[in-house]
Amino acid sequence: MAKSPVTTDDLRQRLAAAQAGLQAQGWGAMLVSPGPDLTYLTGYDAIPLERLTCLVLRDGGDPFLVVPELEVAAAEASPVGALELDLLPWSETEDPFAKSAAMIGPIETVAVDNHMWAEKTLRFQAAIPDVHLHLAGLVISSLRMRKSPDEIEALADAGAAIDQVHARVAEWLRPGRTEREVAADIGRAIIEAGHAQVDFIIVGSGPNGASPHHEVSDRVIESGDPVVVDIGGTMPSGYCSDSTRMYSVGTPSSQFLDYYAVLKRAQRSAVESVRPGIPCEDIDAIARDIITEAGYGDMFMHRTGHGIGLETHEEPYIVSGNSLPLEAGFAFSIEPGIYQAGSHGARIEDIVVCGPEGPLLMNDRPRDLQVIS
Amino acid sequence: MAKSPVTTDDLRQRLAAAQAGLQAQGWGAMLVSPGPDLTYLTGYDAIPLERLTCLVLRDGGDPFLVVPELEVAAAEASPVGALELDLLPWSETEDPFAKSAAMIGPIETVAVDNHMWAEKTLRFQAAIPDVHLHLAGLVISSLRMRKSPDEIEALADAGAAIDQVHARVAEWLRPGRTEREVAADIGRAIIEAGHAQVDFIIVGSGPNGASPHHEVSDRVIESGDPVVVDIGGTMPSGYCSDSTRMYSVGTPSSQFLDYYAVLKRAQRSAVESVRPGIPCEDIDAIARDIITEAGYGDMFMHRTGHGIGLETHEEPYIVSGNSLPLEAGFAFSIEPGIYQAGSHGARIEDIVVCGPEGPLLMNDRPRDLQVIS
Repeated sequence: MAKSPVTTDDLRQRLAAAQAGLQAQGWGAMLVSPGPDLTYLTGYDAIPLERLTCLVLRDGGDPFLVVPELEVAAAEASPVGALELDLLPWSETEDPFAKSAAMIGPIETVAVDNHMWAEKTLRFQAAIPDVHLHLAGLVISSLRMRKSPDEIEALADAGAAIDQVHARVAEWLRPGRTEREVAADIGRAIIEAGHAQVDFIIVGSGPNGASPHHEVSDRVIESGDPVVVDIGGTMPSGYCSDSTRMYSVGTPSSQFLDYYAVLKRAQRSAVESVRPGIPCEDIDAIARDIITEAGYGDMFMHRTGHGIGLETHEEPYIVSGNSLPLEAGFAFSIEPGIYQAGSHGARIEDIVVCGPEGPLLMNDRPRDLQVIS
Repeated sequence: MAKSPVTTDDLRQRLAAAQAGLQAQGWGAMLVSPGPDLTYLTGYDAIPLERLTCLVLRDGGDPFLVVPELEVAAAEASPVGALELDLLPWSETEDPFAKSAAMIGPIETVAVDNHMWAEKTLRFQAAIPDVHLHLAGLVISSLRMRKSPDEIEALADAGAAIDQVHARVAEWLRPGRTEREVAADIGRAIIEAGHAQVDFIIVGSGPNGASPHHEVSDRVIESGDPVVVDIGGTMPSGYCSDSTRMYSVGTPSSQFLDYYAVLKRAQRSAVESVRPGIPCEDIDAIARDIITEAGYGDMFMHRTGHGIGLETHEEPYIVSGNSLPLEAGFAFSIEPGIYQAGSHGARIEDIVVCGPEGPLLMNDRPRDLQVIS
């Protein structure tokens, strides 16, 4: 579906870097099933299904792609064709796990991609005697975290597309409409803005805004409701958008306006602190300390952000306990929130890339509360 | 998103049946992460993400749902609320695997749902000392295979919806249009027919029809092209549609017409053979023998079908080697194909439910080649 903004040379470099990571870890092999890791390494965005498709990297041999016989043409029509990866096709009545294991030979350790289904993980484990399993994310996530200039451009395009949708949200938010009706309008606009698919739409009005992962409901929006609108999609490039802005249908309560001002300051301070070398958890602490000092600490019960790229949520996580220092090219959300259970909630979210000297913002809609009168 | 056509009592019965299966297998616990198994057992269709959400069934204790603190409200707003399942919330800085393991206590075996991500499977394994892992599909798939009358009704609704789309395909297939343009029209129609989402659209014209898993391309459809149209989506109920019909833009070659007649006979014979007690592999053999006897055996390189329900592909698989006898309530595709590499291909696919006395067809569009002149 998605065409990756990468060249065959890019893919070769990624495969070589993954191979180097495998050697550095001392793993016998690395197994990557369909999903964002496979897309990243080969450009082949096969759908995860019951039949085994799997990239195999290994110590002391060339990589190869295990592929169902009836998908050989689809694999060759993908960027895998230009990569000239060796294929290991298997027919409907063969055991692809045994066939792969025989090709790999005896090994002591194998790393599997973090999203590999248990039915595949355990069958590989059974097919390779006495093997120890590791998570390939240790190597692949560290590659995927470091976005190239082309990937940053793809994220900027995604950000511009979701900004176009936020620019129109005020057209649809009206007292008397339900969250679901507003979400339907937003969904159409996400596609019209150039996304290939809608990933999620949160329209949290009034008390529903106090549940950070509320999606939509049949609640009728009332005058005076603050509304959390957190939306995202995947672009044809494969890269994701994700942005939250706050709206108010009519004038909100002064209680809400008080904490909204704190939230805006916390979000801006966290964004401004982004630079190479600062640990992820420090970004979280900068937002959290401002909110806590203002007396709202208990009402900010989630981490400050998540990485973004081929997945909406990926490494690095901007969370207490993550001491990983930022590097130029890391891309992630900064989205503190304050939630008043039973009444309303607020969140402001931008996608930020760590540039060589500071933050690069992928979203640029105003962060003020947009009051719709 | 999807509302399941099940009642709280249905869910209680499913949970009780899964618990009985756990006891019968002698497992210490069964762990079910977001995906179709969790939806089936609890009605909660949480999206699989990095934070751990997991249903825990266990020997000698009540089931509970591990859930991120910030998703407690979303879980309670789902059918989980009416089920009155115990929740085990965890905060952003806790280790949910250790917390779950402590709640479960010492066990020797644990079964994980077949789609659990490796990063969760291996973290559970590390958190429960010396535990042996099994696949929960052994129990859960055997429940999901046996569709209730309400589930069969949901599949019939899905079948009627995709039939509506096939009824309109001839409007869009024209020489000079690309497969991608036709697919865009089909995609809109899949939603208009009542699906909540498009799952896949295959438009395989001319030589592209010879690759069973070709999706779409920018190939321009030419006069004389046979076209494989294999489409499906998910209904608001959560249940899936999947149907393939064959079209020809202008008059196809006599070579194509020869094997199409064989294919139609093979598909019909396989459908007519459906009844309780017949092994899955026999259904496959009935279609395959007819195609092989006509001299096209090498051109039918995939299994005859797959189960369908909350997933497009699930058990039972209609494939050589699967000796499982059909039972009333099993739902699956019957979709033999014949593929002439480099020229064209054909497939006819219906969703069939095994009724007490024979096949119940979920699709009823004509199976003749539809020639568009």
